[in-house]
Amino acid sequence: MRKFKEINPSPRTLMTPGPVEADPRVLRAMSAHILGQFDPEFTELMNETMEMERYVFQTKNRQTYLVDTTSRGGLETVLTGAICPGDKVLIPAFGRFGYLLAEILERCGADITLLEKEWGTVFDPQEVEDALKKDSYKAVACIHGETSTSMMQPLKEIGEICERYGVLLIVDAVATLGGTEVKVDDWKLSACISGTQKCISAPSGSALITYNEQIEQIVKARKRVEKGIRTADDVAGQLAGIPSNYLDLGQLEDYWSPRRLNHHTEATSMQYAVHEALRCIVEETLEARFARHQLNDRALTAGLQAMGLTIFGDLEHKMPVVTAINIPEGVDGKAIRGMMLNEFGIEIATSFGPLDGKILRIGNMGYSSQKRNILILLGALEAVMKRNGVKVSTGEAVNAAMDVYENAAKKQEA
Amino acid sequence: MRKFKEINPSPRTLMTPGPVEADPRVLRAMSAHILGQFDPEFTELMNETMEMERYVFQTKNRQTYLVDTTSRGGLETVLTGAICPGDKVLIPAFGRFGYLLAEILERCGADITLLEKEWGTVFDPQEVEDALKKDSYKAVACIHGETSTSMMQPLKEIGEICERYGVLLIVDAVATLGGTEVKVDDWKLSACISGTQKCISAPSGSALITYNEQIEQIVKARKRVEKGIRTADDVAGQLAGIPSNYLDLGQLEDYWSPRRLNHHTEATSMQYAVHEALRCIVEETLEARFARHQLNDRALTAGLQAMGLTIFGDLEHKMPVVTAINIPEGVDGKAIRGMMLNEFGIEIATSFGPLDGKILRIGNMGYSSQKRNILILLGALEAVMKRNGVKVSTGEAVNAAMDVYENAAKKQEA
Repeated sequence: MRKFKEINPSPRTLMTPGPVEADPRVLRAMSAHILGQFDPEFTELMNETMEMERYVFQTKNRQTYLVDTTSRGGLETVLTGAICPGDKVLIPAFGRFGYLLAEILERCGADITLLEKEWGTVFDPQEVEDALKKDSYKAVACIHGETSTSMMQPLKEIGEICERYGVLLIVDAVATLGGTEVKVDDWKLSACISGTQKCISAPSGSALITYNEQIEQIVKARKRVEKGIRTADDVAGQLAGIPSNYLDLGQLEDYWSPRRLNHHTEATSMQYAVHEALRCIVEETLEARFARHQLNDRALTAGLQAMGLTIFGDLEHKMPVVTAINIPEGVDGKAIRGMMLNEFGIEIATSFGPLDGKILRIGNMGYSSQKRNILILLGALEAVMKRNGVKVSTGEAVNAAMDVYENAAKKQEA
Repeated sequence: MRKFKEINPSPRTLMTPGPVEADPRVLRAMSAHILGQFDPEFTELMNETMEMERYVFQTKNRQTYLVDTTSRGGLETVLTGAICPGDKVLIPAFGRFGYLLAEILERCGADITLLEKEWGTVFDPQEVEDALKKDSYKAVACIHGETSTSMMQPLKEIGEICERYGVLLIVDAVATLGGTEVKVDDWKLSACISGTQKCISAPSGSALITYNEQIEQIVKARKRVEKGIRTADDVAGQLAGIPSNYLDLGQLEDYWSPRRLNHHTEATSMQYAVHEALRCIVEETLEARFARHQLNDRALTAGLQAMGLTIFGDLEHKMPVVTAINIPEGVDGKAIRGMMLNEFGIEIATSFGPLDGKILRIGNMGYSSQKRNILILLGALEAVMKRNGVKVSTGEAVNAAMDVYENAAKKQEA
């Protein structure tokens, strides 16, 4: 067996829509030694994680915990727990990840209706209401921040509409939680799912989920306690059982509840990572964190525009944590991305489907959302665009971004 | 929002059947900064991980990679990928985790036949052959090391029988891989699944899987590429699709293949952890590693017996990495476990189901499998048993273990 070298990654500045840089505090927390899964010190950490997660989701939901999967697994866990085979679900899709919700739900036998929208736009809440009028749905499932297009769907009105129609609203906030407002209770979201590798700024590998009492009741009615650890009190529920054992919301609830019923072995170091990432957010406060992302977004946008690049999509609904630029005519987006990575150690992203080759996406998330990163990215991108034959205004981008920072600082002083 | 303290776990020696201590090298590797999932440096790490995994599984299987779940999710991924709804599966169950295989397979619509065996024993291969004669099965699924009872099922003959009957053999080696022989190719296992938190000695949160070409063909026939990234070449297969999106072997294969088709975002730090854990195994060599576990097992067993305790189950088929002791009459196992943890910082385990309250289980796995740990555990357990009113021979246990180590050292010198 040949020998391999130890891990020693080259320096990287990650300005993609995820994974982004983990806070160094988070990386250090993961090197704490392992605790047993039922060690009271460990279960106390799990409880603290739940409490901090409620702060980040802005919710009082009891069922607010982690799933030991990446964000995609968290989505599947909540969707397949809340939605039974045959349930009608409306999916307003405005990018790749809307189709992923459909894909997950189709596999579990849900009856899907897709509302489709041109990539680069969002839905008017009225369009959702019109669809709800036409048929009787169990749920609406939609994306909050669609990283494939950089668009962000306003949810407050849709939440009110869903409540009025007695329909669940299940939201994918994988890209937005911790970077911009996600008000689970105020917006009346029935469930919300996020990941760790974006604005939460921990490594990929855990999913944050929360859901309300209504979904808790559905899960209760679908519950099957595992044979090997079942007691006489554990009667099977009335609704169809949940198809997966690993992604079974009922079993996960029991594991995260005071009952601590054995299911999987909680991912110890990822638990440490999320605990520390949430501590960073609590210390910074959501308010200051959102303001930081917004300021960096304004600086980035100003810089890109000063360079002469155009921003893709409906600017009014652009996510503050992702910006997509139109790739200039005749330029190879992969070459731009490659030169940014190989020469500058800065990673940005291309896109998928109808936008493949048309846009480049720049992330501004979590620990990566820093003034310094915005400035060096703009300087590097200008040079790379120039070397790839794009006619950009040189010397303007960084300058425009610095103006934004200086004006913001002056405003704060005043 | 109240403030929480940083993670600072009390010192612990983890002598349970998992999770056990991660090698400090593994914990340090996780603090390396994040790389993007398609960064060539990261995909190279993934390839290296596959190569080292093949060494540990003793296989040439191309499909040898990680699933971003704990071990239980890895089991479900392989089982639900290889087994279609309606397929007949024979499960020789000799403890809790055999029933878990049945539970997972029932949920995906398999037609299960359970062979049951008293907890504390294993199957005679002839019993499996007799069952295969009676009906036509697609697969046999069984546990290699049943941690709930400490028993280890010999697999070489069962592998030959399954080959003779044209039946797949899918094996859960969660508790044994990296601690004792698991010869995937030599034993003719069609698929094998393991976790990270036992003899691999990394944190929980990733699953190691391998499967042969026969299962690869089944997966191919069930494949559905996700709509958002599907091309004209991606035609749906002939067999029923895989029920889960997150645990979809077909999509995982594409992600781990040179095609690198986007699926989840690989759990970066867990990837680092497994890479380093496998590097530790490659450096130690499997041969030396198995010998270390065996020696520590002999010392532990000799110590426990010298104390006057009796070992549970069929000694000839005891796992070298787990030892179960019969709880003496009138003693509360939970009190023993509690005093070991609270007074000595040493964690051992109780058990489940019919063995609840009857046995205590001591792990001897991975980094935790050390002479020092065996000696301090024996000393502590003697004191705890005594304080709980058990009449043990005092001063004998540690002494007997030290004899084993000294004799082994002398033998090696000679």
